[in-house]
Amino acid sequence: MKLARVIGNVVCTIKDARLTGKKILLLQEIDDTGSPCGEPLAALDAVGVGSGEMIFFVTSKEAAFPFDPDEIPTDACVLGVIDHINLSSSSAGH
Amino acid sequence: MKLARVIGNVVCTIKDARLTGKKILLLQEIDDTGSPCGEPLAALDAVGVGSGEMIFFVTSKEAAFPFDPDEIPTDACVLGVIDHINLSSSSAGH
Amino acid sequence: MKLARVIGNVVCTIKDARLTGKKILLLQEIDDTGSPCGEPLAALDAVGVGSGEMIFFVTSKEAAFPFDPDEIPTDACVLGVIDHINLSSSSAGH
Amino acid sequence: MKLARVIGNVVCTIKDARLTGKKILLLQEIDDTGSPCGEPLAALDAVGVGSGEMIFFVTSKEAAFPFDPDEIPTDACVLGVIDHINLSSSSAGH
Amino acid sequence: MKLARVIGNVVCTIKDARLTGKKILLLQEIDDTGSPCGEPLAALDAVGVGSGEMIFFVTSKEAAFPFDPDEIPTDACVLGVIDHINLSSSSAGH
Repeated sequence: MKLARVIGNVVCTIKDARLTGKKILLLQEIDDTGSPCGEPLAALDAVGVGSGEMIFFVTSKEAAFPFDPDEIPTDACVLGVIDHINLSSSSAGH
Repeated sequence: MKLARVIGNVVCTIKDARLTGKKILLLQEIDDTGSPCGEPLAALDAVGVGSGEMIFFVTSKEAAFPFDPDEIPTDACVLGVIDHINLSSSSAGH
Repeated sequence: MKLARVIGNVVCTIKDARLTGKKILLLQEIDDTGSPCGEPLAALDAVGVGSGEMIFFVTSKEAAFPFDPDEIPTDACVLGVIDHINLSSSSAGH
Repeated sequence: MKLARVIGNVVCTIKDARLTGKKILLLQEIDDTGSPCGEPLAALDAVGVGSGEMIFFVTSKEAAFPFDPDEIPTDACVLGVIDHINLSSSSAGH
Repeated sequence: MKLARVIGNVVCTIKDARLTGKKILLLQEIDDTGSPCGEPLAALDAVGVGSGEMIFFVTSKEAAFPFDPDEIPTDACVLGVIDHINLSSSSAGH
């Protein structure tokens, strides 16, 4: 899974019917210090997240699991809101 | 899912039989400001998009879902036309 | 799907038995102007392509679809020969 | 599979119900000399690893295999603790 | 599939039970001239390869195919030893 921040959402009138009623979030991937890295991507939301929140998301076929038994055509889905990240003190020394 | 703009299409006489009659779009991936990023890719079209339109597409096995029950050998498919992108005002401050 | 040019092939005496009799092409990924990008990769051939031809290929699990019902262990397969690429005149202006 | 070091963990109150009770590790991918490369990622743990340990992890759908028959929505999972890496003496000469 | 050279192996006492007795190779991806590119990765071996050999490997779910009907949690597997690479003379001119 990757870490990201919710930076907005994508509005689409014309879309695959199975995406109707599903909010399409815009995510900015971040590193462990919260700095942005890579390009923004679109993802569905399995837990109910708000704009600006730090989240983690899953990619590939697993992104459709939260919508079982519906087969939703998505390759990215937010699975959780991050409260905080524990960085182990020893990690810097390795 | 990724954001992209439709920049053309690919014409193929010789191709896998299951792709017969399916338009192969050429996409340029874009970031949240609409600027191009990465290399162009080819994708099928599940919603009917036009040249120059801003769209989002899905990759991997999910790209074949819109053609169920046919098993189409594709790893990229356009799923929606983007009307506009809402960037949250708070995102800049994080 | 990605665009590529066939730049050669890979000869292997020792290989997984299900690849016996299957030509393993060497591909160089290209962009929409035909310029090479990224590293060469090996792929199977579902349509019969020749050296030097511009093709498109599929990756991931979909690469095994053309060989159904055989389960071929491949993650890249050529699906079509590109006759030409139509670049929309409007794309430069976006 | 990729090599990584466990650099911490991610704490989430709000998450997909199937992730309840599962520790979410933060990994830093490393090369064969132990130097960090790429961005940190989040992963589940199938073997019980500690902070600072060098591990290998699997991605994509295979990351859910260790939790069979439960279908866990994850795309990264730690599969083993690395005792040491044997680099072949001949590899430098090729 | 990608090209790589076997540069060593990874020793793990603690690992997922389904990997018991399976050698975990360390691979260095190479380009068509044999030069290294990208980061080393770990992979299983379906054909029996030796250290220093030039091989090709498959990624994603296909990497578990050679072990059917066992469901092995791996996302990379060596499928063949490369005897030599034929580069087509015309490829330089395109």
